Amino acid sequence: MDAGPYIDMTSVMRDPESGAYNVAFLRNMYKGPRKLGLHMSPRHNWQIVRAHEARDEPTPVAIVVSHHPAFFIGALNVAPFGVDDYALIGGMFERPLRLTPSVTWGDRFMIPADADLVLEGHVLPNVREVEGPFGEFPGTYGPQRVRWVVELTAMAQRRDALYQDVFVGHPDNWVMGSFPKEGSIYNRIKGVVPGVRAVHLPTSAVGRFHCYISIDKRVDGESKQAALIALGACDFVKHVIVVDSDIDPFREEDVMWAVATRVQADEDVDIIKNVKGATLDPSQRDDIMGAKMIIDATRPVKRPFEARIQVPADAIDRVPLERVVPPDQLRRIT
Amino acid sequence: MDAGPYIDMTSVMRDPESGAYNVAFLRNMYKGPRKLGLHMSPRHNWQIVRAHEARDEPTPVAIVVSHHPAFFIGALNVAPFGVDDYALIGGMFERPLRLTPSVTWGDRFMIPADADLVLEGHVLPNVREVEGPFGEFPGTYGPQRVRWVVELTAMAQRRDALYQDVFVGHPDNWVMGSFPKEGSIYNRIKGVVPGVRAVHLPTSAVGRFHCYISIDKRVDGESKQAALIALGACDFVKHVIVVDSDIDPFREEDVMWAVATRVQADEDVDIIKNVKGATLDPSQRDDIMGAKMIIDATRPVKRPFEARIQVPADAIDRVPLERVVPPDQLRRIT
Amino acid sequence: MDAGPYIDMTSVMRDPESGAYNVAFLRNMYKGPRKLGLHMSPRHNWQIVRAHEARDEPTPVAIVVSHHPAFFIGALNVAPFGVDDYALIGGMFERPLRLTPSVTWGDRFMIPADADLVLEGHVLPNVREVEGPFGEFPGTYGPQRVRWVVELTAMAQRRDALYQDVFVGHPDNWVMGSFPKEGSIYNRIKGVVPGVRAVHLPTSAVGRFHCYISIDKRVDGESKQAALIALGACDFVKHVIVVDSDIDPFREEDVMWAVATRVQADEDVDIIKNVKGATLDPSQRDDIMGAKMIIDATRPVKRPFEARIQVPADAIDRVPLERVVPPDQLRRIT
Amino acid sequence: MDAGPYIDMTSVMRDPESGAYNVAFLRNMYKGPRKLGLHMSPRHNWQIVRAHEARDEPTPVAIVVSHHPAFFIGALNVAPFGVDDYALIGGMFERPLRLTPSVTWGDRFMIPADADLVLEGHVLPNVREVEGPFGEFPGTYGPQRVRWVVELTAMAQRRDALYQDVFVGHPDNWVMGSFPKEGSIYNRIKGVVPGVRAVHLPTSAVGRFHCYISIDKRVDGESKQAALIALGACDFVKHVIVVDSDIDPFREEDVMWAVATRVQADEDVDIIKNVKGATLDPSQRDDIMGAKMIIDATRPVKRPFEARIQVPADAIDRVPLERVVPPDQLRRIT
Amino acid sequence: MDAGPYIDMTSVMRDPESGAYNVAFLRNMYKGPRKLGLHMSPRHNWQIVRAHEARDEPTPVAIVVSHHPAFFIGALNVAPFGVDDYALIGGMFERPLRLTPSVTWGDRFMIPADADLVLEGHVLPNVREVEGPFGEFPGTYGPQRVRWVVELTAMAQRRDALYQDVFVGHPDNWVMGSFPKEGSIYNRIKGVVPGVRAVHLPTSAVGRFHCYISIDKRVDGESKQAALIALGACDFVKHVIVVDSDIDPFREEDVMWAVATRVQADEDVDIIKNVKGATLDPSQRDDIMGAKMIIDATRPVKRPFEARIQVPADAIDRVPLERVVPPDQLRRIT
Amino acid sequence: MDAGPYIDMTSVMRDPESGAYNVAFLRNMYKGPRKLGLHMSPRHNWQIVRAHEARDEPTPVAIVVSHHPAFFIGALNVAPFGVDDYALIGGMFERPLRLTPSVTWGDRFMIPADADLVLEGHVLPNVREVEGPFGEFPGTYGPQRVRWVVELTAMAQRRDALYQDVFVGHPDNWVMGSFPKEGSIYNRIKGVVPGVRAVHLPTSAVGRFHCYISIDKRVDGESKQAALIALGACDFVKHVIVVDSDIDPFREEDVMWAVATRVQADEDVDIIKNVKGATLDPSQRDDIMGAKMIIDATRPVKRPFEARIQVPADAIDRVPLERVVPPDQLRRIT
Repeated sequence: MDAGPYIDMTSVMRDPESGAYNVAFLRNMYKGPRKLGLHMSPRHNWQIVRAHEARDEPTPVAIVVSHHPAFFIGALNVAPFGVDDYALIGGMFERPLRLTPSVTWGDRFMIPADADLVLEGHVLPNVREVEGPFGEFPGTYGPQRVRWVVELTAMAQRRDALYQDVFVGHPDNWVMGSFPKEGSIYNRIKGVVPGVRAVHLPTSAVGRFHCYISIDKRVDGESKQAALIALGACDFVKHVIVVDSDIDPFREEDVMWAVATRVQADEDVDIIKNVKGATLDPSQRDDIMGAKMIIDATRPVKRPFEARIQVPADAIDRVPLERVVPPDQLRRIT
Repeated sequence: MDAGPYIDMTSVMRDPESGAYNVAFLRNMYKGPRKLGLHMSPRHNWQIVRAHEARDEPTPVAIVVSHHPAFFIGALNVAPFGVDDYALIGGMFERPLRLTPSVTWGDRFMIPADADLVLEGHVLPNVREVEGPFGEFPGTYGPQRVRWVVELTAMAQRRDALYQDVFVGHPDNWVMGSFPKEGSIYNRIKGVVPGVRAVHLPTSAVGRFHCYISIDKRVDGESKQAALIALGACDFVKHVIVVDSDIDPFREEDVMWAVATRVQADEDVDIIKNVKGATLDPSQRDDIMGAKMIIDATRPVKRPFEARIQVPADAIDRVPLERVVPPDQLRRIT
Repeated sequence: MDAGPYIDMTSVMRDPESGAYNVAFLRNMYKGPRKLGLHMSPRHNWQIVRAHEARDEPTPVAIVVSHHPAFFIGALNVAPFGVDDYALIGGMFERPLRLTPSVTWGDRFMIPADADLVLEGHVLPNVREVEGPFGEFPGTYGPQRVRWVVELTAMAQRRDALYQDVFVGHPDNWVMGSFPKEGSIYNRIKGVVPGVRAVHLPTSAVGRFHCYISIDKRVDGESKQAALIALGACDFVKHVIVVDSDIDPFREEDVMWAVATRVQADEDVDIIKNVKGATLDPSQRDDIMGAKMIIDATRPVKRPFEARIQVPADAIDRVPLERVVPPDQLRRIT
Repeated sequence: MDAGPYIDMTSVMRDPESGAYNVAFLRNMYKGPRKLGLHMSPRHNWQIVRAHEARDEPTPVAIVVSHHPAFFIGALNVAPFGVDDYALIGGMFERPLRLTPSVTWGDRFMIPADADLVLEGHVLPNVREVEGPFGEFPGTYGPQRVRWVVELTAMAQRRDALYQDVFVGHPDNWVMGSFPKEGSIYNRIKGVVPGVRAVHLPTSAVGRFHCYISIDKRVDGESKQAALIALGACDFVKHVIVVDSDIDPFREEDVMWAVATRVQADEDVDIIKNVKGATLDPSQRDDIMGAKMIIDATRPVKRPFEARIQVPADAIDRVPLERVVPPDQLRRIT
Repeated sequence: MDAGPYIDMTSVMRDPESGAYNVAFLRNMYKGPRKLGLHMSPRHNWQIVRAHEARDEPTPVAIVVSHHPAFFIGALNVAPFGVDDYALIGGMFERPLRLTPSVTWGDRFMIPADADLVLEGHVLPNVREVEGPFGEFPGTYGPQRVRWVVELTAMAQRRDALYQDVFVGHPDNWVMGSFPKEGSIYNRIKGVVPGVRAVHLPTSAVGRFHCYISIDKRVDGESKQAALIALGACDFVKHVIVVDSDIDPFREEDVMWAVATRVQADEDVDIIKNVKGATLDPSQRDDIMGAKMIIDATRPVKRPFEARIQVPADAIDRVPLERVVPPDQLRRIT
Repeated sequence: MDAGPYIDMTSVMRDPESGAYNVAFLRNMYKGPRKLGLHMSPRHNWQIVRAHEARDEPTPVAIVVSHHPAFFIGALNVAPFGVDDYALIGGMFERPLRLTPSVTWGDRFMIPADADLVLEGHVLPNVREVEGPFGEFPGTYGPQRVRWVVELTAMAQRRDALYQDVFVGHPDNWVMGSFPKEGSIYNRIKGVVPGVRAVHLPTSAVGRFHCYISIDKRVDGESKQAALIALGACDFVKHVIVVDSDIDPFREEDVMWAVATRVQADEDVDIIKNVKGATLDPSQRDDIMGAKMIIDATRPVKRPFEARIQVPADAIDRVPLERVVPPDQLRRIT
């Protein structure tokens, strides 16, 4: 633990009302042998600590340092509050997550049996201390903030434990956060806009702030509705771009081509003010609220719209490319 | 069937891809002994007919005229496309819905065993005829439209069958449509904004166009996010008003009090253009797209805001109301 | 006067320039045997005190505690500045208001002869003290404010004087304030939009913040013009909804039905920033300015629009309602 | 009458309901010895003809060609519908307008006794013919329109009658229309915003489309409220600019200086869509509706704002101007 | 120099990178026999001082008090940064500007040979003192500000030197600043919108804040593009009005007529937020950023639009004006 | 010429007024041995043809099929109308472009001496024929349009002439068009915003519709001003994104990171309506006008903003990367 001042690890807490376990990546600052700082955004674990603090009670927390990757991906979903994340992570393993009683609370608080290292402790009720500054997920250094404090009570460790680390503000941090969210958002859109094809939270926007959605649009206006669902589903999402199914939302330049050739900003861009955003977003002027933007880059269904150029396959086949370009230099043009 | 030209009844169709049954209220016009007109908005059954028509095939349809009310309420939910509505209706009964093979298609298409009357037939592929004009759910007479045609193949009837009817454009029609939607929207908001207290689609807005949401707001901006979820979840919803948990969303005058005293329109009102709306909404200038509006009538969390006047309970108790007002005239003032 | 700290009573002042008497409901706080706090919004009496203070002179004020209801209703009109309110109140009685010289100033300042109780005093020039907090007309508790002080000089009382009271922030307070305003606004609209039918300031919006206007619209755009007049006429009005003459503006659910079925927010909603509003409106971010909103819920004159469903009278007559519903349970459905 | 095809003269009609006479400038096209075309915008006379046409009856009309200027100025006021214009014109003369029975209808329809020339006739019910094109008040040639027809029945003429003419689309036409409106608008603002100083409808905007209002602002937001009143009072007004009382609203360059130095468009400019405007405004895309704009060019009351430069009077006096500039060339610099 | 505390004179500085001389009107406050205060807006000289301060070096500055008018007009152009203003001023003279080595820096810093008076000195690096308050170009008194300080080193004076002065905040100050800008902006528009006819920065808007552009529009939308160029070219310009070529942009009432009769504000007005403006603009809420507004008062090319009234020349000729108006009173009507 | 129906080649025309040659890429359709279709957008050559057609004269045109690449790059600049493009192309070669008299017009119309192939002909005055449909530069198939016709008069060809071709709607077409524009726009911004670092028109947006500008921002609001200049300079540019100098505008993912982390859309996004755009933009609802959008993704200068994470160089150096990753797999992480 004295390797450095800052780790961003999965913290497990338990909703006192429903008993559901909630697992989330929270930031811990090294403050002493048995003391950690704790930063949370106002999401599920924050709700749990809030409920404990209302009764002036400490909140049990188990910090899971290393585990199978499926554990962490499960932790990064955007499941509704009240869903037991242990159950959901089990879905990732396709069998129940193996649990074991904690050192501190016994079977009143179970911890993952296969973790390499688990720190147990309590979030002290209504105590705040200065935390940070650290590099943060948007790829920026945040300011110091006044945040919670964890007092450690025990540590459970496997022999030869591995120490996994995610490099905050870099692609491994971003990708790990984005793809569980992509799945959740996709599922929500699918139920309302059946023609949805794919949802992508690109690395360029740190896997969180931009959401590119491709749909096979069947009636006009479905595109904006898909965008509203994405904004509603995940408060990290700030800018949504909706494209037609001929555009690959995983290729940013394809998405930008659609923005360039299919958008008239006075009709296709909508801005919504004062929505809950991400506390760590450096652009927010308010602590928690910000503006959201929708860009509908789909073609209208009802009026004709110019099709994309495609060289016919047989025309391509008739050109013996290998005769004009040395084979080791062949690269397909977009 | 010759009692009148128009019935609004639950039509069952089956998704050719997933095999899921979809149940929806669709409008049928009497066109002859074995022929009905059919109006659908672009939602789930429309998708199913669209899939059959792409292969130039007729779409089997079973029209369920009378059944236990739970059947119809289940039919009016806003479940995602792909969910089997028979299963979902079973949830309403708290046991599986009893089914029986149809006359026309046998066990390839099951029909409800306890219905009073079931008409079986096919939606003819790529055939359209003039339909209407009728009174419609918004409480207005719609124009004539060019719509689908159903050719009947069989009828299954219980002895002493009841003939249930809903009076379109009147409260029984509105309430039946609103409360399954209220539950669906509530559930979706609950997962993201745990403090949501209630969702109401008031009768004044025909149980569909307005959505009043009350939340116990914990961070600023949650209110707008709840609104985005409601707009995303249900394309009928056009105007969303979000209120604090001290406001009863089922009392319209309470909601309007919040709009009066907690809204500054330049910051709290957002308008989103060109979103999929309801084809039958008489105000839409486009056939399917319209504008949506969010009114955030909640107080800010972060800055002090004036509390609502409440006469202290003990002050009320000290007034012997029955001594100044004759008991039979007592009515509690708001 | 020691019954409680706060009364909201009509204060009479006299414009030093025109000599006109101005009567208004102002809030007085009990501060001692001969001393009252005074709260005014920047309207007519505020102008009068302002004129006196510019010359560093005290402003004579007569506080009328109980009188015939017509007195108070006359006091709550929205007559232009410069109109003599005694004359206007006389219009309510259909004979001149009976006056008598005051104890303090003789016939230089007349007071109502038929009041039960009149307090006389001076607003001290350029003196301010902390006032409040009290429950206020919007139904909320306001903050403490630094406000004027009245020094009492005399009291005139009838034998067996009644002590009338209005319960601030409750319906009696709201209704008394709304209907004189409704009349004034109606008259102003009538001259420009002759088809205006009714103006209502609903109790839900504390009889002040919302204004529902019904018009028999003859040319498009008259609806927005009527709204502009209402906003101009009365700075309390914050949100105006204009409906057609088939809608009853006194039934809020009817008004909301029009909003639901006749509004497309991108064309029909207008927001105007930084207009003078009500100091006591708890939502205002500025002390005196706020945003106003117009919702035009009328149908277009120029293009066809779907009519409202009405069951033909003869069809209703053909249904012998008393044969299916026990007569004592009959209630007409909307 | 054969001098030319077009006269813009005061037409008198009588409201069948209230009996009030309404006098307005309407355009008449010469169509034959006893036949005139008639153009009206949807204002008061249009309401009167509309009422007659609803009963399929002709509308009596007396066309007054020449009279004392006070007659015409009275006719150009913006009095509310229902006010008797003969009475109002009498106010201009400071004695009742002298009337005499008409040739056609006797004392059922009185005509001005001192007019030089009066044409009597009927607007034919539900008859329309092509009218125009003519030069119109905005200073532009309008398109041909389908309009009403007047059939003449009699002519009353003084000996040595003068023939007065107004040159439509030129300053005499503009000024005559503007100053009665300025008075009406000023009066309406005065009652709500007592600090109003002057209202000007400049000739640059054909005495109708722009309204410059100067106020001695006492609380912030009064400026926008004055603008709302002006827009509400007169549908010709399209753009309102409000300035402080140190600006002369009759000097356009002074008004533009205030726009230049006291406006930030994102807060001070408001645009209201789809309001009733002027049919003859060439810029309107709709026949009758258009957009209105408010520019608030006043300084804030609440925060300090930079004062206008003024050379102190004693400094000016110390400069013996006549010693450096030849007296006949002296012209005061702004 | 002890005549008064404030002169607004041309200051010459030299870009350390390119060696180009930059000449600008900057404000100097008399602070002592060898010390001046200095106010600059963030434009070219500010860049030069900024570059010197980054190296903690004083910035040489030569203050030119009186010279041929062409010198000052050249100084007021809006040439791109990096253009040598001595060369550009030479263009005004149509021969190179005559230069001579300075007293302080010799031929490393040349000064105008024909100036009446040149003060030489250094802007002290990273020193700031209170400056002002003074009357400023917008015609208002600005607040005190913390600004740069110049230490004088030498003075070069012609025998019988004239002392020229510009009266800040008055027309001579405004006109001198406007017409070099008009030329620059015209040239930039000309390259992109060849039909541009004239550019005017009217005196009403202190020769800086308003820009009236007339164009012979050939395709729709050129008007807005011309406005974008004007806003981009000169940060003083705040409001742009574009008119057709039948409107004289040098006659403000003509421009306002176009605004009155050719604008629909919802389509023709655009507001752009948070653009660099003028520090001395008293309306700016931010120190340097403000809102810009474009008003497109041109007619559409694509749809017919009503032409302006013109009395045919031969009709005018047929009226012998001198026979009805005494010749010395003849003044042409607009 | 019978190789295919469509070539996009440089056409030379000559301004009849100034005599300047204008060179532009215009589309020619093969219509017969001596006849070509011609498509032009309303830019410089369109002005020249328009001037000839006003006099009903044919417009001489020389179509240059193959030449040195510098010739074509020079042709694609965005020089102001009136600049001689032959002179400007000479600038590219750093010596005058070699010219030779044309076959058809002799030295009244010079053609490039070093071209491989030149077709000479006339644009027929006021003749239009159907042209297209073709693939167009936005990467889409355009509709058929009614366009000009060229009648060929002569052909000048070098021995062994090369036939160069650009593949319209593909990267070679886009890049060739983008970089001369980047230079022109950069130069214009440089003069007003000296801190501009780079301008990029990315291939994703077909080298025309998006403009990414990086600036070393010195005062707030310079970013929006740079954007206004870019929009004004080139009517192809539709969306401008401005970033700080720590962002590489040539790396789209870097630009999108700035949009994600530095934008709040309610303050940083501006939309301008009805500006001249590109006729071939498939999204335009009007033939020539469209909406433009500015996204300011720069950090504020005046308030602190979170810095971008950078791993310190010495920390990187301390990690012996080659010991943990096989050298042939080393790829630098973003």
